[in-house]
Amino acid sequence: MSAWLPPGPRTLVGIGDDAAVLATPDGRVVATTDFLLEGRHFRRDWSSAADVGHKAAARSLADLAAMGAEPSALLVALAAPADLPVSWARELAQGLAAECARASRGGASVIGGDTARADSVILAVTGLGDLAGRAPVRRSGAAPGDLVAVAGPLGHSAAGLALLTAGLSRGDLVARGDLVARGDLVAAHLRPAPPYDAGPEAAGLGATAMIDVSDGLLADLGHVAAASGVRIDLALAALRPGDGLLTAARAVRDAARHDSSARTAPGSRPAPADTQPAEDALGWVLSGGEDHSLAATFPPGTRLPPRWRVIGAVRPGHGVVVDGQPWAQAHGWDHFA
Amino acid sequence: MSAWLPPGPRTLVGIGDDAAVLATPDGRVVATTDFLLEGRHFRRDWSSAADVGHKAAARSLADLAAMGAEPSALLVALAAPADLPVSWARELAQGLAAECARASRGGASVIGGDTARADSVILAVTGLGDLAGRAPVRRSGAAPGDLVAVAGPLGHSAAGLALLTAGLSRGDLVARGDLVARGDLVAAHLRPAPPYDAGPEAAGLGATAMIDVSDGLLADLGHVAAASGVRIDLALAALRPGDGLLTAARAVRDAARHDSSARTAPGSRPAPADTQPAEDALGWVLSGGEDHSLAATFPPGTRLPPRWRVIGAVRPGHGVVVDGQPWAQAHGWDHFA
Repeated sequence: MSAWLPPGPRTLVGIGDDAAVLATPDGRVVATTDFLLEGRHFRRDWSSAADVGHKAAARSLADLAAMGAEPSALLVALAAPADLPVSWARELAQGLAAECARASRGGASVIGGDTARADSVILAVTGLGDLAGRAPVRRSGAAPGDLVAVAGPLGHSAAGLALLTAGLSRGDLVARGDLVARGDLVAAHLRPAPPYDAGPEAAGLGATAMIDVSDGLLADLGHVAAASGVRIDLALAALRPGDGLLTAARAVRDAARHDSSARTAPGSRPAPADTQPAEDALGWVLSGGEDHSLAATFPPGTRLPPRWRVIGAVRPGHGVVVDGQPWAQAHGWDHFA
Repeated sequence: MSAWLPPGPRTLVGIGDDAAVLATPDGRVVATTDFLLEGRHFRRDWSSAADVGHKAAARSLADLAAMGAEPSALLVALAAPADLPVSWARELAQGLAAECARASRGGASVIGGDTARADSVILAVTGLGDLAGRAPVRRSGAAPGDLVAVAGPLGHSAAGLALLTAGLSRGDLVARGDLVARGDLVAAHLRPAPPYDAGPEAAGLGATAMIDVSDGLLADLGHVAAASGVRIDLALAALRPGDGLLTAARAVRDAARHDSSARTAPGSRPAPADTQPAEDALGWVLSGGEDHSLAATFPPGTRLPPRWRVIGAVRPGHGVVVDGQPWAQAHGWDHFA
């Protein structure tokens, strides 16, 4: 795949030797590894090869950003069936390279990897990043009084997955006038767009803790609360789902009701009045995973740029609460397997 | 698994955050990723969990040594069935940590990773290493006149695999008096022991090219010959299999003949006089993979320490030859899948 993966400015030895050599002028390297597994994290009938490349890269690159680092390089281990088309591998490589370019103005690149045969497509992507002299932003530094803020969307990937799972075609949604919402949300699931720059930006603003939202906001802030020994109190008013999520939730509900009424005997009780879509959409915001947005805590009084939305505050105690109360519907994100 | 994986001296942020942070005082990091897949690279009925940990680590750590680097850290992505016993994961982690300790006096350690569910055990291990100010030893620097030398065994892993595949039990070999050979060779397959120190040593001696023998000597030196634009001429006399390999080859042949005669009608022609084991054993030396020994080229006249055995010379031309001739039986190593 090396022909499709040009070296970057920090690549001293690239693809094709026993190992790569990457410049780390900071004297430290930030490193993370993540799987992207067919059937668990993506389906080849929903995702193009380029989508898979973008998403595999984004999972690791967002982890680097969440430490306050700028991405430098990826190593990509790819196992695939023998009949995987060459064009699929090429488009995968192009997706990986394009996401690297999106993630780093300094020029991140794929510097190495491995290939093997397997019954399904298996990707394990290692991201390497640079702190440029800054301290890493860990999960453990949040202190009572800090602001809690998020950069990037919440629940969009989960909504897109729900639309795909409900089988809502483009045609269905054109008929409803909802195509724009669907397109954005399905794209957010297939090809999440983490706000990479916001990671080093948060570090520069003095962020005390940071995490990328991969398992769901409540679950991931739960990791921050546990590591920091604090309670995180989210403000429900700051987390209300937007019109796009509400529209998607109604469409998914309508599709489910249509399915269910098709199986229901005539004369049976009609569905109750529908307050459920708003709850579904809020569930996506609080518990949906894979948006790879960044959630961080900042000292009180920090002036945040507009893309950081304040969603709560850090308190003494433990766990994550919403308007001071435990959130009963909180579930971790378990992909779709 | 973090409880079983202590941080090393270069670990600035270890397991449990979005990403790890590793000290790279050299200003560069050497990086490589390798799969170890159940059913392709190991079988759980043959390999203990600790064996799998050792082998998974060795594959990446040997790649670092082959660049002349000292290993610093591993990141381990592990996908496994839901019913994988906790004890198996614990012993896997212990094997990974123990191989790190074997690989680096400076203290390599597992600094991060990922876990997921899959139908079989999938490991993708990233190795990170340090060049301590030395230039990396690439595949492309061999020049006509250079010596070709190897550190570590050749063909031992292939012989061990052949013994396992032939179903030769410990009891069979005790009866033959061959148990010691079997034990060593099967261990060499299940838990290869790369001569890690020989990598930085070769760099210090001025090695012009280096590679680890993972696909077989002829195949791997073929990569060096191609990258360097040279011919590598091996001396058959330097590659004669030792008694252990010859004993194993005879045992494997005897087992195959026993199987075959059990299926042959009485009165059929007896097997021909047996010159085959010596050829089989030589085939393991030349084409067996997964020993993770190091093969390197050195300027003529380099005084090599005893563990480096001279096996040939670099000539103008291309490809790999044995005593000046193409080796007809040359096959790359294709594991056992």
